[in-house]
Amino acid sequence: MKDVKDRAAEAKQASLELANVTEEVRNEALEEAAAAIEENRPRILEANEEDVTEANKLLERGEYSQALVDRLKLSEEKIDSISRMIRSVSERDDPLNKTISARKLDEDLKLYKVSVPIGVVGSIFESRPDVLPQISSLCLKSGNAVILKGGSEAEKSNRVLYQIFKEATEGVGIPEEWIQLIEARREVRELLELHEKVDLLVPRGSKSFIKYIQDNSRIPVLGHAEGLCHTYVDKEADLEKALKISYDGKVQYPAVCNATETLLVHQEIAEDLLPELAEKYRKAGVELRGCERTRDILDQIDEATEEDWRTEYLDLIISIKVVDGIKEAIGHINKYGSKHTDAIVSQKGSRLLEFMTGVDSSSVMANASTRFSDGYRYGLGAEVGISTGKIHARGPVGLEGLTTSKYYLVGDGQIVGDYVESEGKTFEHGELSDTWKEESDSLRER
Amino acid sequence: MKDVKDRAAEAKQASLELANVTEEVRNEALEEAAAAIEENRPRILEANEEDVTEANKLLERGEYSQALVDRLKLSEEKIDSISRMIRSVSERDDPLNKTISARKLDEDLKLYKVSVPIGVVGSIFESRPDVLPQISSLCLKSGNAVILKGGSEAEKSNRVLYQIFKEATEGVGIPEEWIQLIEARREVRELLELHEKVDLLVPRGSKSFIKYIQDNSRIPVLGHAEGLCHTYVDKEADLEKALKISYDGKVQYPAVCNATETLLVHQEIAEDLLPELAEKYRKAGVELRGCERTRDILDQIDEATEEDWRTEYLDLIISIKVVDGIKEAIGHINKYGSKHTDAIVSQKGSRLLEFMTGVDSSSVMANASTRFSDGYRYGLGAEVGISTGKIHARGPVGLEGLTTSKYYLVGDGQIVGDYVESEGKTFEHGELSDTWKEESDSLRER
Repeated sequence: MKDVKDRAAEAKQASLELANVTEEVRNEALEEAAAAIEENRPRILEANEEDVTEANKLLERGEYSQALVDRLKLSEEKIDSISRMIRSVSERDDPLNKTISARKLDEDLKLYKVSVPIGVVGSIFESRPDVLPQISSLCLKSGNAVILKGGSEAEKSNRVLYQIFKEATEGVGIPEEWIQLIEARREVRELLELHEKVDLLVPRGSKSFIKYIQDNSRIPVLGHAEGLCHTYVDKEADLEKALKISYDGKVQYPAVCNATETLLVHQEIAEDLLPELAEKYRKAGVELRGCERTRDILDQIDEATEEDWRTEYLDLIISIKVVDGIKEAIGHINKYGSKHTDAIVSQKGSRLLEFMTGVDSSSVMANASTRFSDGYRYGLGAEVGISTGKIHARGPVGLEGLTTSKYYLVGDGQIVGDYVESEGKTFEHGELSDTWKEESDSLRER
Repeated sequence: MKDVKDRAAEAKQASLELANVTEEVRNEALEEAAAAIEENRPRILEANEEDVTEANKLLERGEYSQALVDRLKLSEEKIDSISRMIRSVSERDDPLNKTISARKLDEDLKLYKVSVPIGVVGSIFESRPDVLPQISSLCLKSGNAVILKGGSEAEKSNRVLYQIFKEATEGVGIPEEWIQLIEARREVRELLELHEKVDLLVPRGSKSFIKYIQDNSRIPVLGHAEGLCHTYVDKEADLEKALKISYDGKVQYPAVCNATETLLVHQEIAEDLLPELAEKYRKAGVELRGCERTRDILDQIDEATEEDWRTEYLDLIISIKVVDGIKEAIGHINKYGSKHTDAIVSQKGSRLLEFMTGVDSSSVMANASTRFSDGYRYGLGAEVGISTGKIHARGPVGLEGLTTSKYYLVGDGQIVGDYVESEGKTFEHGELSDTWKEESDSLRER
């Protein structure tokens, strides 16, 4: 049995080869994988059934929730949607070999900055079995090797999906070690230590799960531990828009990271806004918790404590605070927020601007719902994740989050010694209209 | 006395304000700093003299080298060049508020991805006192707060330079806590733990120093621990170019990270190349160490051991290996190299391409010296550092390495609930020709 270190070394080696697999072959491999998923329905459903049976036993013993069993369960329709997802990834523009910049340093000395794969991606995720095909497709499209570790609840489903991916992609010229599966919990700990082999971690799961990974690895982590998002209703807000945006932010889908958790309301508009908004919230079953000034306006709601300002409910609960002004709102968000997504409602442009530039979050919305921040709505296509870190990628991240850059300098014998002051050669640093694709095509034929 | 945590919290707060200081004010502050450096020559030289006196005592006791004393010493000319450097940073294009992408999600729903400061940069550097003004200028230009820790040898020089920067920038509207100095060695350890306050570390120093920082902090590190660069001479090489590039890579400035440390030579060209190249190297005082096949061609050179392939000499020493072909060269580099800069010499375009795409390094040169890889030669202006990591920035990094991005979504009351299937609104995801500068100007007046 290979240990994690061996698997990571294999993945690293495969990643070097995969970086040079053409777009056509990568897309063909994705098409093969999509077809194989469809052809192997019975095999997938059978394995999934075993996982679900186990999960139901835990459910009976009260060690598992019905919601988790539901998330685990695959169906004919879910399998269809998995293969559709794989094909849609195949159809995206190639994220590799894009010319990020091109510069003429001097005659016959051309510098290209080009997008290339990161290398080896470690993906650790909880229960849902459709995560494996998604992250595998994104990695393959972007030329990265991937080491997968799914939740133990989905062990059999994940194993079959992994095998299908591996078999389908091998046949078309993808180095077979590009995809690796690890299954034991202790192997996660080992994986987290392999910063010399694994270039990026893309975890999916609960806040405590992500935090565990961030706290226990030197490998960079792409993602977010929580989404504690705010909507601020300014004194210059249009009341209609404020009602709609505050309602949508909380109610439209409360279980997700870009849902609004805290509402901040300017004191001058609180009495006009809160009663009507509270009525709408209550009809939708939202529990309200408020600061003292909120409770002066709204009857019979619980007090919001310091703990509430720090809580991502992911549920039909909202905390409400009346603030003296926009500065207090910005200060509150920068103190308690998670740098994910925050929104302002105001008709005054200068106040929108003050809020947007003052709030230190990855997405800031002016007169739009916090719920808009995701890769699909932003037009990025398949989403790798939403990053609240400041390094590498920030906000919703598409395929380009799985790439890095590389400099190619194409010369004709130039040496630095000729460019020192006494030797007289100088740099031109001019624009270059060629792309790396053109340059590499011409090199290929030379 | 404030502890490091307090200083970092102050820097964090200042960074939020600094992010919104206009380009004009940031540049004015840089001009003030440059002028203050000139006006305070006697004060700077006096403090530096104290540092040099202490260093000379250590030198006498054999605890310090003359080279280090020389690097520590400031002169009238060095002070001139520091203020010139600050002015040149001031003159660079603003790295902030650049529109990275702009997309029309729907009517009156505009998404901008904009460059913004990272936040708080921690800079830890060894002896040379001109590092402090350089990193401070780069941080100020890019709207970042900075926490500085210099070497104890330059303590008095650094303190004066820090005070001059602080005083000069306060007067023009920069939040005074943007620049922080820490002096005690134990404070470094504390700083490395502040990943919630410090967004990026930019260390300068020896390999062991950088590795210490990488191994002891969760904060992302921009830089490289070593530059173990290779030049590969292919069988299809032009001999003249191969001689020039191999010589320049080693001899032109051996003490720097982009100098060539190992020469790889295709077996079919080794006998033609090596005798003449060895002669040139010997004239320049370069010590040669070779593999067995190299030693069959060149007399009286030491054997290169496994250790040599792993060594960054930073000196007039080169290890030479004769390889069977281009694949062995690529494999050797990916195994022993530091992912910094590697070069190939060949007249055959397809072989250049195979090497460039196969070598997993941040810069790969075709028929040009490894010595070209730096920010100035690449036309990036002031260099923040050279990154061999794959995340955030790779290769020589200019001011944009101190920025991240932020999404601004400007709407008119839109909610996600209107875009679900049953409600019929759909995303347009079209191009947007407006820039964020235009949008923010129009918001400011609205």
